[in-house]
Amino acid sequence: MSALPASLDARLAALLGDGWRTDPAERLTYGYDNSRREAMPDGVALPRDRDQVVELVRACRGFRVPIVARGRGTNTTGAAVPIAGGVVVSFERMDRILDIRPGDRCAVVEPGVINGDLQAALAPHGLFWPPDPTSAAFSTVGGNLACNAGGPRAVKYGASRDNVLALTAVTGAGELIVCGSATTKGATGYDLQRLLVGSEGTLALIVEATLRLTPKPTARRALRVIYRDVASAARGVARLMAQPVTPSMLEFMDTQAVRLARDVGGADLPTDAGALLMIEADGEPHMLDAAIAALAAAANGDGLVALDDAPDEAARGKLWAARKALSPALRTLAAGKINEDVVVPVSRIPELVDGVQAIARAASLPIVCFGHAGNGNLHVNILYAPGDASQCERADAALSQVFALTVSLGGTLSGEHGIGLAKRDFMPQAVAAPTLALMRQLKAAFDPDGILNPGKLLP
Amino acid sequence: MSALPASLDARLAALLGDGWRTDPAERLTYGYDNSRREAMPDGVALPRDRDQVVELVRACRGFRVPIVARGRGTNTTGAAVPIAGGVVVSFERMDRILDIRPGDRCAVVEPGVINGDLQAALAPHGLFWPPDPTSAAFSTVGGNLACNAGGPRAVKYGASRDNVLALTAVTGAGELIVCGSATTKGATGYDLQRLLVGSEGTLALIVEATLRLTPKPTARRALRVIYRDVASAARGVARLMAQPVTPSMLEFMDTQAVRLARDVGGADLPTDAGALLMIEADGEPHMLDAAIAALAAAANGDGLVALDDAPDEAARGKLWAARKALSPALRTLAAGKINEDVVVPVSRIPELVDGVQAIARAASLPIVCFGHAGNGNLHVNILYAPGDASQCERADAALSQVFALTVSLGGTLSGEHGIGLAKRDFMPQAVAAPTLALMRQLKAAFDPDGILNPGKLLP
Repeated sequence: MSALPASLDARLAALLGDGWRTDPAERLTYGYDNSRREAMPDGVALPRDRDQVVELVRACRGFRVPIVARGRGTNTTGAAVPIAGGVVVSFERMDRILDIRPGDRCAVVEPGVINGDLQAALAPHGLFWPPDPTSAAFSTVGGNLACNAGGPRAVKYGASRDNVLALTAVTGAGELIVCGSATTKGATGYDLQRLLVGSEGTLALIVEATLRLTPKPTARRALRVIYRDVASAARGVARLMAQPVTPSMLEFMDTQAVRLARDVGGADLPTDAGALLMIEADGEPHMLDAAIAALAAAANGDGLVALDDAPDEAARGKLWAARKALSPALRTLAAGKINEDVVVPVSRIPELVDGVQAIARAASLPIVCFGHAGNGNLHVNILYAPGDASQCERADAALSQVFALTVSLGGTLSGEHGIGLAKRDFMPQAVAAPTLALMRQLKAAFDPDGILNPGKLLP
Repeated sequence: MSALPASLDARLAALLGDGWRTDPAERLTYGYDNSRREAMPDGVALPRDRDQVVELVRACRGFRVPIVARGRGTNTTGAAVPIAGGVVVSFERMDRILDIRPGDRCAVVEPGVINGDLQAALAPHGLFWPPDPTSAAFSTVGGNLACNAGGPRAVKYGASRDNVLALTAVTGAGELIVCGSATTKGATGYDLQRLLVGSEGTLALIVEATLRLTPKPTARRALRVIYRDVASAARGVARLMAQPVTPSMLEFMDTQAVRLARDVGGADLPTDAGALLMIEADGEPHMLDAAIAALAAAANGDGLVALDDAPDEAARGKLWAARKALSPALRTLAAGKINEDVVVPVSRIPELVDGVQAIARAASLPIVCFGHAGNGNLHVNILYAPGDASQCERADAALSQVFALTVSLGGTLSGEHGIGLAKRDFMPQAVAAPTLALMRQLKAAFDPDGILNPGKLLP
């Protein structure tokens, strides 16, 4: 039983044919994302083209029915959960790569294209699209753009927002807008395409994207650097980011993460390892030696315990083993995990990690930090037993303290996961009231009736 | 005699002290920019801090008096000309570099800092801020941001919009907003800072900017490549942009520009030169050989006439002589010059140049194209005699045709100069009506009474 007005139901059925679903069992599968939250939509639309999207937005607007855009639901913040009911618009049928233009370093795609499928299609051209979230094999380009997805490569190549040239989208008023152009430079009016990136479906539905591509480096090489403590590793990060060879990845593990990878995950790490950096360089093979030498020199400094170079892919795999052992080890430690992705200026990483450990001690809960150090973007994992009310309460309090600490260090709530539902109520901590008020006014300009993903991003 | 209400005049005098100017001779010097347009403001404000900016905007808003932000007036589009009178706000007294943080790769500056002064302050830290407009020695960071200034380095390092982390600004409602954070990643609400970049003072006045810095390469090396014709050079550009070594500059001169540099400017160029590329690589000295070899290999192809490598700075200067000879040569050819900076996808450069030459023939006027080929951003120079009514008319018609051609090739009006007054009325050619309408609504959200730089950017 859908709660939609019968005439809207009939209109969408006529518009979308078998792309209109109201069966409860089917609706249910479009009601959750990777946040483990869920809510039942009243209908699911699978449009085939932009005209159908325009028509369905106009139809829903006529009845003030909410619309929630959906890629593949890999989001961790609840941004794709239809908490106000209404219509979920899944872009799974708009999944064509429309054009790949190597000389222009761009590709034109529909929003439902899977990130990994795009990369496979680009590989023969020697090109790639930089955003590489962990979900890349399953998540869509549209979803990546809606959430400004990043990943480890962002330290060198930027996140989704840095890799888009133009977007075609349908606003909450049902207007088709074309933002930007397929050019790498532009000073023609307001930059609407980068505003849409990261807006989590609250401003407009993306129906076509022109992506900025980068030539794919033909080789890569990794360093694993072990430090005595977090402060030494963080000084290494600052040195690495202040010299001219930008690493293609610069990943960090704090003391808790190192211990967990070694003691629980079985990684081969010395007992005096207090922190770890995984550093990668990419480029042309004949340039890599020099790049790795520059990175190793920058990584070397007070507190260094060991520096291992991986000359080939097999050795690279061995070095990454410690990082790979971490996630399963985390799961064995506690059933409940709050995984946040706060971001601070690189120089403030030691204060963030120290402060987080103080919060952990006060809460009597383990907190493990690792992530994309080159961007100051750390995944803070608060571990707790979901069945224990006291632990749940302390975990929630710790999370709030982590956000307050982050903001006090000049950082912000999210580096790459977004706000969605999970962090919505923390927005006033990070964004001043007049700026938030302006964001609400912009939302109203794009979506006058507030039908696009209501209740997300803005408190 | 200022046309301002006496009470506003008194209030601004009390607020700003000697930073409030109403003497006509002084006002006049703030009434023009590099577009050669001019208009008399009713007063000139030289605020010392953000609080004064907030107060002055609120005061002006109370009387619906226009406000035009001004850096150093190097803009070429009339964006800084106070066509509706009102108050010009010059940021010359807000010119402090507040912080340079090498480990965070960022600097915090007031808007009145001169681009060149910032670069000088960054040099000892081995860092630079990428935007390098021709005006860099005189233009301000605030002006660069307001207009999304680029320059030749943008092909590798991006334009102003790509090199800003956070902005503090005062909206037309007199609200102080803080957009973004001093982090290289962010997924916390709407991206307002990149929206402000390129908005030409129509949305808010920037009072502080946190800039993204890049480690300064310690060496550079240039190639000059001469081709038989424009099509061969353009194929070279496409090959260069499709391989992994991104040049730090990739400048182009068309047949007319080459001929002018040789026959009028005296540059040493062969008579069969139909087009020219200046290519530069930068990086660490021990990596440059490999980079230059990769660029030379990509530049080499059908239609190549000569490829010269500059192993040192003296030789580099000689290779650049042809480009440097061009601007004075242009001036000798005609007193009037319309210099536009259209941008097209790189692969469409040959069609753009061919089409422009057809327009030149039909108009019986010389048109010379050169510019930043790696971004498809060409400076189209229409030459005419300002005293000749027929030539003026034909030049205007040719300009309109150049814009139409550019848009038909998937390009847009401006790559780096902006819209201002000069291209405002061409906006509907480049931006569809619903998108323009949305831009107007965004403007209204930032500036409800339309007092910020009225008549600019939006038609």
